[in-house]
Parts: sequence; C-alpha cells; structure tokens
Amino acid sequence: MILRIDLLQTELPPPTDPDPDGAAAVQELLGGKFGEMSTFMNYTYQSFNFRSRQGARPFYDLVASIAAEEFGHIELVAATINTMLTGVADEGLLAGTLGARIRRSVTRRLGTPLEGVKGVRNTQHYLAPGGAGAMVQDSMGKPWNGDYVFSSGDLIEDLTHNYFLETGARSGKLRVYETTDHPAARALTGYLLVRGGVHQVAYARALEKLTGADLTRLFPSPRIPTEKIPECRPHLDRGEHLKLYRFSPSDFGEVRAVFNGPHPETGEELVVAEEPSPDGAPANDLPPQPGVFAPGPEPEEIAAIAQRLRVAAGLPRRPSGRVA
Amino acid sequence: MILRIDLLQTELPPPTDPDPDGAAAVQELLGGKFGEMSTFMNYTYQSFNFRSRQGARPFYDLVASIAAEEFGHIELVAATINTMLTGVADEGLLAGTLGARIRRSVTRRLGTPLEGVKGVRNTQHYLAPGGAGAMVQDSMGKPWNGDYVFSSGDLIEDLTHNYFLETGARSGKLRVYETTDHPAARALTGYLLVRGGVHQVAYARALEKLTGADLTRLFPSPRIPTEKIPECRPHLDRGEHLKLYRFSPSDFGEVRAVFNGPHPETGEELVVAEEPSPDGAPANDLPPQPGVFAPGPEPEEIAAIAQRLRVAAGLPRRPSGRVA
Amino acid sequence: MILRIDLLQTELPPPTDPDPDGAAAVQELLGGKFGEMSTFMNYTYQSFNFRSRQGARPFYDLVASIAAEEFGHIELVAATINTMLTGVADEGLLAGTLGARIRRSVTRRLGTPLEGVKGVRNTQHYLAPGGAGAMVQDSMGKPWNGDYVFSSGDLIEDLTHNYFLETGARSGKLRVYETTDHPAARALTGYLLVRGGVHQVAYARALEKLTGADLTRLFPSPRIPTEKIPECRPHLDRGEHLKLYRFSPSDFGEVRAVFNGPHPETGEELVVAEEPSPDGAPANDLPPQPGVFAPGPEPEEIAAIAQRLRVAAGLPRRPSGRVA
Amino acid sequence: MILRIDLLQTELPPPTDPDPDGAAAVQELLGGKFGEMSTFMNYTYQSFNFRSRQGARPFYDLVASIAAEEFGHIELVAATINTMLTGVADEGLLAGTLGARIRRSVTRRLGTPLEGVKGVRNTQHYLAPGGAGAMVQDSMGKPWNGDYVFSSGDLIEDLTHNYFLETGARSGKLRVYETTDHPAARALTGYLLVRGGVHQVAYARALEKLTGADLTRLFPSPRIPTEKIPECRPHLDRGEHLKLYRFSPSDFGEVRAVFNGPHPETGEELVVAEEPSPDGAPANDLPPQPGVFAPGPEPEEIAAIAQRLRVAAGLPRRPSGRVA
Amino acid sequence: MILRIDLLQTELPPPTDPDPDGAAAVQELLGGKFGEMSTFMNYTYQSFNFRSRQGARPFYDLVASIAAEEFGHIELVAATINTMLTGVADEGLLAGTLGARIRRSVTRRLGTPLEGVKGVRNTQHYLAPGGAGAMVQDSMGKPWNGDYVFSSGDLIEDLTHNYFLETGARSGKLRVYETTDHPAARALTGYLLVRGGVHQVAYARALEKLTGADLTRLFPSPRIPTEKIPECRPHLDRGEHLKLYRFSPSDFGEVRAVFNGPHPETGEELVVAEEPSPDGAPANDLPPQPGVFAPGPEPEEIAAIAQRLRVAAGLPRRPSGRVA
Amino acid sequence: MILRIDLLQTELPPPTDPDPDGAAAVQELLGGKFGEMSTFMNYTYQSFNFRSRQGARPFYDLVASIAAEEFGHIELVAATINTMLTGVADEGLLAGTLGARIRRSVTRRLGTPLEGVKGVRNTQHYLAPGGAGAMVQDSMGKPWNGDYVFSSGDLIEDLTHNYFLETGARSGKLRVYETTDHPAARALTGYLLVRGGVHQVAYARALEKLTGADLTRLFPSPRIPTEKIPECRPHLDRGEHLKLYRFSPSDFGEVRAVFNGPHPETGEELVVAEEPSPDGAPANDLPPQPGVFAPGPEPEEIAAIAQRLRVAAGLPRRPSGRVA
Repeated sequence: MILRIDLLQTELPPPTDPDPDGAAAVQELLGGKFGEMSTFMNYTYQSFNFRSRQGARPFYDLVASIAAEEFGHIELVAATINTMLTGVADEGLLAGTLGARIRRSVTRRLGTPLEGVKGVRNTQHYLAPGGAGAMVQDSMGKPWNGDYVFSSGDLIEDLTHNYFLETGARSGKLRVYETTDHPAARALTGYLLVRGGVHQVAYARALEKLTGADLTRLFPSPRIPTEKIPECRPHLDRGEHLKLYRFSPSDFGEVRAVFNGPHPETGEELVVAEEPSPDGAPANDLPPQPGVFAPGPEPEEIAAIAQRLRVAAGLPRRPSGRVA
Repeated sequence: MILRIDLLQTELPPPTDPDPDGAAAVQELLGGKFGEMSTFMNYTYQSFNFRSRQGARPFYDLVASIAAEEFGHIELVAATINTMLTGVADEGLLAGTLGARIRRSVTRRLGTPLEGVKGVRNTQHYLAPGGAGAMVQDSMGKPWNGDYVFSSGDLIEDLTHNYFLETGARSGKLRVYETTDHPAARALTGYLLVRGGVHQVAYARALEKLTGADLTRLFPSPRIPTEKIPECRPHLDRGEHLKLYRFSPSDFGEVRAVFNGPHPETGEELVVAEEPSPDGAPANDLPPQPGVFAPGPEPEEIAAIAQRLRVAAGLPRRPSGRVA
Repeated sequence: MILRIDLLQTELPPPTDPDPDGAAAVQELLGGKFGEMSTFMNYTYQSFNFRSRQGARPFYDLVASIAAEEFGHIELVAATINTMLTGVADEGLLAGTLGARIRRSVTRRLGTPLEGVKGVRNTQHYLAPGGAGAMVQDSMGKPWNGDYVFSSGDLIEDLTHNYFLETGARSGKLRVYETTDHPAARALTGYLLVRGGVHQVAYARALEKLTGADLTRLFPSPRIPTEKIPECRPHLDRGEHLKLYRFSPSDFGEVRAVFNGPHPETGEELVVAEEPSPDGAPANDLPPQPGVFAPGPEPEEIAAIAQRLRVAAGLPRRPSGRVA
Repeated sequence: MILRIDLLQTELPPPTDPDPDGAAAVQELLGGKFGEMSTFMNYTYQSFNFRSRQGARPFYDLVASIAAEEFGHIELVAATINTMLTGVADEGLLAGTLGARIRRSVTRRLGTPLEGVKGVRNTQHYLAPGGAGAMVQDSMGKPWNGDYVFSSGDLIEDLTHNYFLETGARSGKLRVYETTDHPAARALTGYLLVRGGVHQVAYARALEKLTGADLTRLFPSPRIPTEKIPECRPHLDRGEHLKLYRFSPSDFGEVRAVFNGPHPETGEELVVAEEPSPDGAPANDLPPQPGVFAPGPEPEEIAAIAQRLRVAAGLPRRPSGRVA
Repeated sequence: MILRIDLLQTELPPPTDPDPDGAAAVQELLGGKFGEMSTFMNYTYQSFNFRSRQGARPFYDLVASIAAEEFGHIELVAATINTMLTGVADEGLLAGTLGARIRRSVTRRLGTPLEGVKGVRNTQHYLAPGGAGAMVQDSMGKPWNGDYVFSSGDLIEDLTHNYFLETGARSGKLRVYETTDHPAARALTGYLLVRGGVHQVAYARALEKLTGADLTRLFPSPRIPTEKIPECRPHLDRGEHLKLYRFSPSDFGEVRAVFNGPHPETGEELVVAEEPSPDGAPANDLPPQPGVFAPGPEPEEIAAIAQRLRVAAGLPRRPSGRVA
Repeated sequence: MILRIDLLQTELPPPTDPDPDGAAAVQELLGGKFGEMSTFMNYTYQSFNFRSRQGARPFYDLVASIAAEEFGHIELVAATINTMLTGVADEGLLAGTLGARIRRSVTRRLGTPLEGVKGVRNTQHYLAPGGAGAMVQDSMGKPWNGDYVFSSGDLIEDLTHNYFLETGARSGKLRVYETTDHPAARALTGYLLVRGGVHQVAYARALEKLTGADLTRLFPSPRIPTEKIPECRPHLDRGEHLKLYRFSPSDFGEVRAVFNGPHPETGEELVVAEEPSPDGAPANDLPPQPGVFAPGPEPEEIAAIAQRLRVAAGLPRRPSGRVA
C-alpha cells in the first residue's frame, strides 16, 4: 500500500501563456507507449507479480521502489499539462454570452469562449469531459492501455524490457524537449531526463549483476549527453543523476545490493539515498477554468460551501493544504 | 508523490488449489471498466487535474486520499490473482521433458507441463509473457484503457461519476463473490465490499454537502446487505465500514469536513482515522513457477546471486523483506 | 425520427434450457463485423449522409427503409441471447448463501449461485454489469465499433459494400445455425436468413438498375439454398423472401422503383408490401435473474412500487404492456 | 420494431459556410462516450434486456420510449455534421483538373480540389471513404464502441447510470455550444439541451419513485441555466422542457406513472404528450459533393436513372420525398 | 517464403519541400481500412488459408501472386511518406541548442528544432519513436489492425470482398490525389491507381469465371477515368493496366487461366507477364534527420563504423547497395 | 519488392486430430505482441524507414534480410494453425441436416455439424468468416495491430528493441511448446526456436559492433538450452543455428559485415549462406471444410470450373502447383 505526500517531486513554474498543442505533445510522455503511465504500471505490476521475492529480494526491492517513484512522474506530467492548458477556458458561457469581458482575442465572439479550442490537436482536453486537464492518452489522443504492460515473470526478460522501455522513454522526452520551450515543459523534461537516466543505469546494472552483460556500453542512449541540456543542469548539480530513493518509510533497503558501483558515463559512485524521497515542492494552485466548468461554473460558490464545512468540522478557517 | 509500504491492506490466504478460470473472473475486478484500476486512476487523475484546490480543499482532500487507498486495492486484487494461478505452472520444460516428476494429472504428458493451460479462459496468464501473474485486463482479456477515466473538472459531475463508479464496482464484486468460493477470492471480495461501501458513502455525502441531494436513500446499491456476507463480517466488526484513512503522513486532513455524520444504513457515526492507514499484513512469498520461467527457469541461481550481492553490499545474509 | 412498436418482427420460443456458450456464439450475429448492429448502422448512416436525396430518391428510400427493418433485427438477436441466458442466474446471493433452494446442479454450492459462469465463453454476460443479457459485442467479446460502418457517399460504392455485407451476414447466420440447435437460435436464424436474402437481392437489383451489372448470378451466396433449411420454410411459405416493407407510416414509397422484377433464384415477382411492416409478435416476458440482480435482487419490491405508481397515475391496475 | 418517419425532430438551417473543424467538434456529440450514439444504444439495449417487464412496466416504458427519441437525436447530429461539411468538396477531380471552375480560394490549385482538407482535424470525413458526412466517431476520430453501453439488468444501477450519462451529455453539449457558433451547431445544441434536460429529469424522477432519493437537488447539472441560452428559448417557449413523448403509435403509455410531478427547476407540471411525437421538420436536401464522389461523380446521371425507374414503376415524375 | 529485391516497383522523386500534413494524409493509403496493408494482408492470409489448392489452383495462384505485388505497394507508400517527412527534422537538439545553423524559419528558436512539429496532424511521426518515417496507421493515427483482414475460406465470398476492397482502395487513392500535389504523392497515386485497377479487373474476372456474374459493368468504380489523370498516363502508355505479374521465380503460372479476355474499359487483351516482376527502380537514399535521431544523432559515426566493418569483412570499401 | 516462392521454409506434418484450442494457443505466435506478425512488420518497416542506408549499409542489409525471412515465419505459423483446425468442420450444413454421414461424435446432432465449435476458445476460427483458418489475432482473439511496430529511426534504439522482441518471441515459443504436443505445433516451434535464436544473436552482435556492449552474456534468454528440445535437433544438426540467409537473389550482401564471429553459446563460427534461402518444402494441400464453406460448400464444382479454365488457357490438365 502507499502513503501519499501532497508535494511534487520537483518544482514547476506557474502558468503563463497557454500552449494547448504543446500540452497535446506532452501527453506522449503521460499516456504514450513509452510514457510515464507505462513506466509506472510496468514496474508496479512486475512488483505485484514477483515470485520468490525473498530469494530475489534485491531485485524485487529495485523494481518496487522505482515503481513508487514513477507515481510522482505521472503526477508531474499531469501537472505540466494542466499548467499549459490554463488560460484558454478561463471564461465561461455566461461570461461570454451575457458579460462584457472580451479580453484576449479578436476571434473570440460573444458566446463562444472556447472558439480557440476548435482547431487544437486534442479537443478532448476541453470538449469531452476534460476540464482543461490531463487525459490518460498519448499525443494523438489514443488512450493508454494495459497492453503496454510487460510482466513475464522471468527476471532477465523483465529487466531487459525495462532497460528498453527507459531507452524509449528517454527518446520521447528528448523529442518533446525539441518541440516546445514552454517553461513548464522544459522544467518537466529537464527533471525527467535526469531521473530516467538513473533508472536506465539501474536496470542495466541489475542485468550486469545477474549475467555479466555490460549494457552500460550503450550509454547514453539516445546519444544526447544530458549535461548539454541546460534544464538538466540544476538536477545534475544536486547529484540527482547518481541517487536512487527507496520511496518507502522503511522498506526496499536491499536495493543497494544492486544499485552501486560507478556511473557508466561519469564514473562517480552511485548511491542509495538515506532519506526516503526527495524534498519535493508544493504544486501551484491552478486557477478555475469556468469555460469548462472546472471546478464548476461558479467556483466561488464551492469555496463558500467548503468554508462552511471547514468551520463546522472544527478546522481552521483557512485552507490547510500546501500549494506554491 | 508517494511512499510505498510493502504490506497488503488486509491478509490473504496462501495458495491452495489453483483456479485459473476463477482468476480470469477476478481480473474483472482489476482491469474491468468497474475494476480497481478504474477507481485508482479516476480518483488519481481527478486529484491531479483539480483546479482551485485551496478553495475546494475538503473535496480535494477526499478525492486525493481515496485515490491513495485504491493503489492498495489493485495490489490486493493482483495478489489474489497470483495466488489463484499458483500451481499450474510449477513444473517447467526441462522437468517435464527430461525429468520424472509427473505428479498431478493423467492428462499431463512428458514435455507439456502447461497442457492444462490450453483450455483456460485467459491463456495469456501463461502464454503471452505472463508469469502466472495478474494482467492489466478484464475477465475477457481486454486491456484496461484510459477511456475508463472520467475527469471533467466539474466537481459535481466528477462526484456523481464516482458515486456511480462505486455502484458498478460493488456490483462487480458481488458477482465475483457469487462465482467462486476460492479462499483468496473470498478474502478479497469480503474486504473490498466493505471498503467500497465506505467510498460510496463518501461520495454521496460529498454531493449532499454540495447540493443537498440525498443519494444515501439509494443504499445499499446493489441491494445486498453487506452484513449478510460472512467474509465481510470481520471487517465490519472492526468498524472498517465507518472509517476513512488519509493514507498520508500529514496531508488531506480536511477530509473530515466532508466525511462525517451518520452512516446511511446503520446510523453509526462516520470517522476519519487518526492513523494514516490500516496496519496491513505481509504478502505471501509465492513460490516459483518454472513452467512460465518465473522468476526464471532456475530460481535457485537467482537466489544464489542475490545472496552474493547482499553480502557484498554489507547487508545481512538473510533477506530483509517482510513476507507472510 | 422513429416510432417504436413494442413487438418483435417474428415469434421466438420461451426460454428452455440455458445455453450460455450458444448465446456467446449468437453474439456474433449482434456485434460481429457482419452482425445486425453493422447492417443497422451502415444503412442508417448511409441514409443520414445521403446527398441529393431528391435526385436519387428511389435509392435513398431503399437504403432508409432497410435501415429501419434492421432495428428489428438487433431487437430479435438481443431477445434470442436473453432467452438463451435465462436460467443460469435465477438464484441470487441471498438465496444461495442463506436459503435452501439448491436445485439444479451438484456443482452449485452454497453461496456461489454463479459458479457455472466461471467457465463460460463470455463471462461478461454475468460478471461485468451484464444482467444475463445481450452485450454490444461479437462472439469473442470484442465490442462492436463505428469502424464497421462504411458510408462513402458514392452510391455505387455504398451499394457494393452493402451487397458484400449481406453476403458476410448470411455466412455468419449459416455458421451459427450449424453451431447450436437451441430453439431460440434456430427460430432467429431461420427468420434472418430469409430477410437477409431479401436485402441481398435488393442491393444487387439496385446495382443492376444503376449499372447493368448482374450480381444476381452470384446467388445464393454462400451457396446453401434457403429452402433446404426447415426453420426458413414457414417464412418462405408466407412469401417473406419476396417482400420489402417500407417500415414507415407514409414515407419511402419510391422503393418500388428499384425493388421489382423476378427473384433471382425462384423467378417469382418481387413486391413492396402495402402494409408498413409485418404483423410482429409480442416478446416473452423473461423472468428475473436474481443472481445478477436483474431487474434487482428483489423483483417483487419493484413490482409493488410499479403497482402503486400505476394506480396513483390513474392507470389500470394490471400492466398494460403486450407480452407473449 | 420501428417505423421510420422521414422528418427531423426539429428544424435545421441550410448549409452556409463550411466549418470542418466545427463539424469535427460536433462529432463528440455523436460518437463520443457521452454522445447520442451512447444515449440511443444504452437505453435501447436496456430495454431489450429488461427482465420482468410486466412487473416493472412503467420503468420499462420510460426507458424504451426515451430510447426511441434518441434515434432522432443521432439523426439530428448527423444532419448537422453533414450541413457543416457541405461546401469544401463541391468540386471534384475532373472539374479541378480539367475544368475552369476555380472559385473559392487562392490556395486551391488545379487538380487538388480537396487541398483544404489536408489540415482539418478529421480528414476521414473526406479521405477515408467519407462522403463529407458524419462518421461514427468522436471529436478525435475514435470510433464509438459497444463498451460505452451499460446494461446491468439492475434497475437502480441502470437508472443511476442513465442519470449520470445525461449529465455528461449535457456537459458535452454546453462545451460544443461554447466552441462554435455555426448556425447548424447552435440550432442543434439549443434543441438537444432542452430535450436532454427532460431525460435528466425523467431518470432522476424514476430513481426518486423507486427509492426516495432526491437527485433533482443536483439540477441543473452542469449549472448553466438552460433559459439563459438564446437557442434554447424557442423550445422552452413551446414547453418542450416539460414534455415526454411516447414515440410509439400505441405503446409505452405507462410512462406517465413515472414522469409526473413538478419540474425541479421551474415547478411547472411535467406532462406526457398525447401525440406520439413532435411534428418534426423536413431535412434539407444537401447538395452533391463531387470532390468526394457523393452521391457519385455524376449526380445528374443518377438522377436521370432514378427518373426513368420512377416512371417505369408507375410513380409520379417528380420525386415524392419530403425535403426542406 | 519470399525473396526480397531491393528495388521499388516504380520510381519516386527525391525529397523536396517537406509536407507533414500531406504525409499524414498518405498514411490512409498505408494503414487505413482500405490501404495497402489491408490489400497485402488480406490476399496473403487468404492464400495461407486456401484449402483445396490443387483443385482451385488458378484462383489460388491469382490471390497468391497479387498478394506478393502488394508487398511492393506498402513499400512504395512508406517510401512516399518518408520522402514527404524529410526536411522538418534535419537539425537536432545539439545543433539547435548550441550551434548556429538556424536556417529555415523565424519561428524556429534555439533548442526547439522540432517546434514546427507541434501543430502537425500526426505528431507521432516525430514524437513517439517515429524517425520521420511511416507508421502502421491511417490518416487519423489509428493503428492498422487484423480485423481488417477478411478470410472466410469461401472463394466466392473472398473474391467479392476483394473486389469491394479494391473499390474502396481506388476511392482512397483518388481522394489523396485530390488532397495534395506533392510530387511524391502524385507519383505514388498515379502508379497505384493503375495497378489497383488491374486487381479490380482480376477479381471481377475471377468471379465471372466462377459464376457468370458480370461485375465489370460497374467499371470504373469510382467513376473517374484513369486515363484522365496525368500521373497515370506513363503507366498506361507502358500497358501496365493490362498486365498481371506472377511475382515469383517459377510459381503461380495458372493465373493466366483466370486473368484473360478483354479489359472491360478499353477492350484490349489482358496479359500475364512473362517476366516475374516489373523492372523496378532504386529507392532514394533519404538523408539523416538528426532532430529525431535517425539513424542516430551522429550519422557520421555510424558510417565510420560501417566502413570499418565492411573492410574487416573483406567487402569493397564503397557501400554495395542500389540507391537512386 | 518481393518474389514469392510457393514453398514453406520447413516441412510440416499433414493434419491428424484437430486441436482447436491448441490452434488458439498457436495464434499467440502469429498475432501476439511477440508473434511473427510483429517480427515481420517491425523489421519490414524499420527497413522501409531506414535513413542514410548507404552510410549504414551493413545494418540496413541485416534488418532488411531478416524481415524477408519473417514472411516465411507468418506463413509457417498460419499453415500450422490451418493444420490443427482441419477436421472439425469437414461436414457441412446439408450433409448434417439431410444426409446420413454422422460419424465422429455422439454429441453431434443432425444439422449442427459445428456443434463442437461452440465451446472452443476462438470461435471466430469458424463463426466469424473464418474458414477454419488462421486469423490475424493473438491467443485471446485480439487483433494484431500497428502499435506493435517500433521504428524509431535511431539505429541503436531499434536494434535494442529487436533484441528484446526476439527474447519475448522465444519465450512465447517455449510456452506454446509446453502447452501442446500436436505434431504440427511441435514441428513449428522446433524450427522457429532455432531461427529465432539466430536473429537474437544477429541483433546482439549488431549492437556489439556499434557500441561494444556484450549482450550475448544474456544467452540463452529465456534460459532453456535449445539443444535439449528434441524438435530443435534436426535443425541444429544441419547448422541452421549458425546461418543467416539473405533471402534475396542478389541484394543484402553486406550482412556478412555484421553477422560473423563465434556463436555465443557454442563458439562455432557464424556464417552467411551463399544460397539465397533454405530449400524449403511444399505445403500440404489441406482438405476442404464444407462446414465453413471452404473453399465453398461444393469444392468439386470449383475444381471442375478450374479444370475447364485450365484447358481453355492452354495449361496442362493437371494442376501445376507444388504440394506435399
């Protein structure tokens, strides 16, 4: 089971200009065959289905703890998409039809506050019940599905798969990086490239420990040095490319029996963090988007009800959540 | 982000007789439209996409914390399926071809240790790279997909959806209960029926707080009283039908602003637990299944390597994991 | 738009022995690529998308009226599946667990009234929220989908498609006929083979009128003479193989400009019926199946409520519907 | 079975400017998970699978008659899409290549009469055999499929589903309304919002009659008052928001045992219409689109053949169909 | 089994301006329901599944040899798509970020060499691991799937299907022709229209031989005379519309028992070629696209390794392959 | 383009007892994610999309020629499935209904010659237009689809993928071997395991040549020594585990620059065959299955027509094809 901490694994910038087609591209990193839903679910189900756990404990602990990190990755990608979609639907039907706040665009007419949505690549972000939020889809709007999960039970096959999956995932992140320089997308890909690199190393090292095969000769794969990417630098400077977290209060300690030795590119020593997870950062509290009724056409009414409930329950008057 | 605890939310019995067709049926509770992948992913994405979190904080906390509980539910269903699949593939190709251990069945010939698999409902549990383990599929072998996630952004719509989803999920659990009396399946459904009931109440109560609509008049839905089901009784006796956990070290405390008042069926007071989660129970360490090469055709070799790595890393000689 | 008449196009026998695997096979005639959902939806959308209707009126009328007949066909196939599924789930959880009515089978134990379902080919008839009723799926449980609809706008292409579709549909019906002799399946296929034959003739004749191509030389296709099939005979004796109905109070009269001339196999004259539709027959009122909560675990309670509502609304005390 | 009336349930404007991306958006209301194919097929199959019809007659009549209305809705949405697609493909290959009729756009070169199609959101409206007509797809081009049909057999579950489905459908209509002000789209959504509202009320009332739960406190959901939408006003003025039609010559009369009492928003009395259906309006006879060979590259040739056939069959020289 | 010849069946022009949306349209001819994957796989599987081959030898030979031609067609369509995609990704991340070669567009900023990709219709050509190359998808990005294969075993049904499939394929080619005048797309469609026409004739003739039905009265279907299309002319002039190849060193000679008689449109005599295949033409050696790491971020490094390997293996220093 | 040779790559036994559920299992090797459709299509599209072919020629030649071999593999798997399905449908409707040939089974009644099909795992082999022949599906009846093709353009990524794909394919073959000892299935898997092993070696060697990474330390993967499997032995004895064929009359000669050096398991020298392909073996001429109308309900009639056509075309009276 899990405990959830209401923080992101790294900081994201607040919304600026909306970038719906950029957000559609970032969906590839969420629901694509090589997106974070795939890494999360592959390692999670491999850990669920792991037989003879005690006998193979260091490998179980490796897969199980990386799985836990990946939850944080789907959370980050979703937050990025939400950020990039913010601003297109910030006016709703009543405002558009009856009101007078016609701000942004000459193409926006009375009563069609979503007109700009008509031509975007993923209209379901707005049309199908999508509240200007992340969908469980890839960049073409195709839903992620369970066929993307590989869990053969054979440890060598599974690790080979995972190494290949991380390679495809790295490739996808590089391509999205090349596609949009929206600040949120760049903060996301900079972080994920570093962390995905750690997972590539981890699975290659696990195969090496089991068989002697030296997959690290393939690094980096694809062959773009992470250190050349500016948005990766702060994370490299903090040593995040060398560190595996257990993402657990007290379990998965045997991961250090596999994840050790020199980093294949830099020669620095790999390390398992003492602390269970990185510090994290609070998420931005993204503003309502009345054009898609999120969190409702009248967010103020919901806020007033919430306030009453809070008081009735003996909670402080001010919301207690952590936001940026 | 999450921390993972290597315990199940409730105890499951160890493997007894294999029940592959029963396991195929239980898949409906994992990857079916109304299975636990759907509850987990719906609430998770609704929490990711939640706008104006501070304004609607008690509702955000409710959805976010139930999402965290649902991870434990996919874990439980997967463990059940693994348990029910154990035993069919416990001999492998070499044993079958060359060895002499022809134990269980007259229909099992030399060299076809998986012959019994030919007629089972979900052959991919064994044939497609499935290590006698859970697939991300429903009872017909159709993969779970992202289309099953509803995240409209509109709080009232989302809560209405969630209430309906829990109703369908409860229906599914009751039907699986009626289909197999395998001990693992019964332990699973007994527990999930109680916890799913709590979630039904939670979403109905949230809608009531927002609108005044009294959905609790629909309870129980479907109309099978949980208390009549023997496998639910221990959980009812412990009050698990009244309690919501935050599943977080320190977040989601405002859930108590929504989850309160009398239980619609029993009149007892609903309560938010002080402790972050239930105590949990260690999982069974399921035995290798060499017929599907899980965790490899020669599990002993993996165990020996693991032992060497453990020692080299300065870890204790005995595996440190928690298993039943 | 449509008006609905609460009658089946032909009579079906009441439920006898359940035949779940036979029902799974009959699903091919409902949701298969060549099933009745496909004929219904293909002709319906071709009529919706028909351009220059007045100019091509006789052809529009042909496609539009056959579309209307096909609604009656999905209704018939669904009724057949429901009939064949009746009886497996006629006991529910409470009866099974607590009661004493253990009737039919030695394999049915206390508390598992659906145990027989575990091995059937389509478990979703019972497990997924399926009330022992028809699913919009084929014989393998794959959902029907909109890709099966061909509507090119080009009249000659569309008619060629329709001719081919009817050929595949006839093939499917013959194969299901060969697979099960359940009385409901036989009554269904006997009727559909005759009516499908009429549609094959109609589309071939339309192509002949447009181009001169003589597709009727291909008849029958597949080459099983309908007259040799006993269950077809009553319908042939009534001339149903020669007759097209408009299925409309007053529209689609120009169908007779296309559907005329000799029947390609028998030489008899084709005819457009004066009456809008066949007489039809009332459906059987299929009994509750408490094991799947249809129409609820306690059908008597629903009946009592219905009775009260009927009286309160000034309706007669006895239900007014037409059933067999 | 059904009779088909060759009229639309409400009037649509004739084609004006084409709006292919708007038409792609409107597809969400046809083949989306919450589109009219879903409402049509859900209620249709629930009526097909309804057990114990006589006992639950008022509820059966309600579901069966709303199903019949929904056929008219898919017809209306398809007509809207056809209207919005008219004009892009009104020149064909020969005209483009060899002819001289280069009218509309400087970007249209000799021989590429469909060049404008290259960038539209749903190219299959033109490229895949789509005759500038409706596809059985959503706004992303994903086919509608049978998984969207929920038919549990449990009356309370089914009605809860239907209520939720109508909520999602209303949300979708509002979002499309916000996206395009094409006259056809606006006429469509104005009408459907009113009729969908009636269905929401009907299912909520049915649940109230069965259980006492008051779902009408949720109204309107989503919370946009229909009366504020200009295109809804004519239908409200005619009382269409209060009226349920039986859509049957003589069946489904017991619907009035459920559909009665005050409208939850206005307090006006709900009423079951005496007449079987609304008056309806003839469809526009949409012009040929030679660029996609609809209804054939030479519509005049088809018309001439039709004329000859009409005469040969003893029909009047002028087409008899009803068009606007 | 097959032998592969490293030549295209006809010549394609080298890359000029990239046309990503045109390439997305051409995908319909590859992975669409009526694309070349469908013709290739339908005839291939029909030949694999052909029963009683000796008895029906001329028909088997016909289907088997046309299947072999279709491999060349998927190859041609893929080459066309690759050609049209060349040029957008010809700069990579390092060049974009650190270098100075900012050539083509003012919208292309430092570090986003793929920015132009953000708005194209099929982003997976670049984003998902797609190396600016063909995907097994249709024009909407939906994957081709095995459901598109029809192999009933009934020869008349299969031939009817094939005739209809070729009709739909011809329609698709005409529509793509109308959509883009990119030189590669035009060279492709000009050739495929002629060869597809031969296949339409072949299947119609086969049906005629088996049943006497004269489908050739439907020709051409759709009714655009191929001779009016300039890009078809060179192939017509060489008689390619009259000729069937066996595509085999020595098999499939009985095809001439079916493919003979006059061409239905021109009256010229159909002929089975003596030579196994057309002469073909070498493919263009398409340049690297570093922006998508094809064939790697540093193609020169790969070339150097290849050179060393060539020498080490005793091969000539210069690559031996045939390219244009 | 390709030339087709009407021979299988290896010999298969003639049909004996039908084994429909075994055939359903073998489908995993055809249309499963790791089946031969995947290997065929992955390498084919990678070769189509290969950029800078001349520069990377030895690698292009490797991928292109293995692709060609894989066509022969889908052919072999399909032939195996056809063989295993032969015998269930060898009586048709008329024989069953009217005739007297009730041979095999007491459960087979008059008029239901396919009754045995009702319970098989893949009913579409018979019901959906499947002529007791191979479907493009996996062992659960799910269609193969283009999503299974990975073609990133990045040579290292593609080769890593291919290595992993062959690993999964080998795993699948071993599991099918364990599942059925039908002679055709065993002949198939014995051959494919040897040839798949060659491809695993080839891709590992290619990666080694490019990067120095030694993947051959992973061999065999999964860890079942091929030499222990009796059905592999004849192929090993002929050296088929060491040999790559170019499968081309004169192309792809540079494959020898990559495929050389010692075999990782045996140390024997790898070799590129001089001859283009193995000798092959004629396929069995599988008998008609009238129950599914293959090749028609009256195969004799087709044979008679074929005979007449043969004579009319000046061909020998006896069929010229090569069959076993």
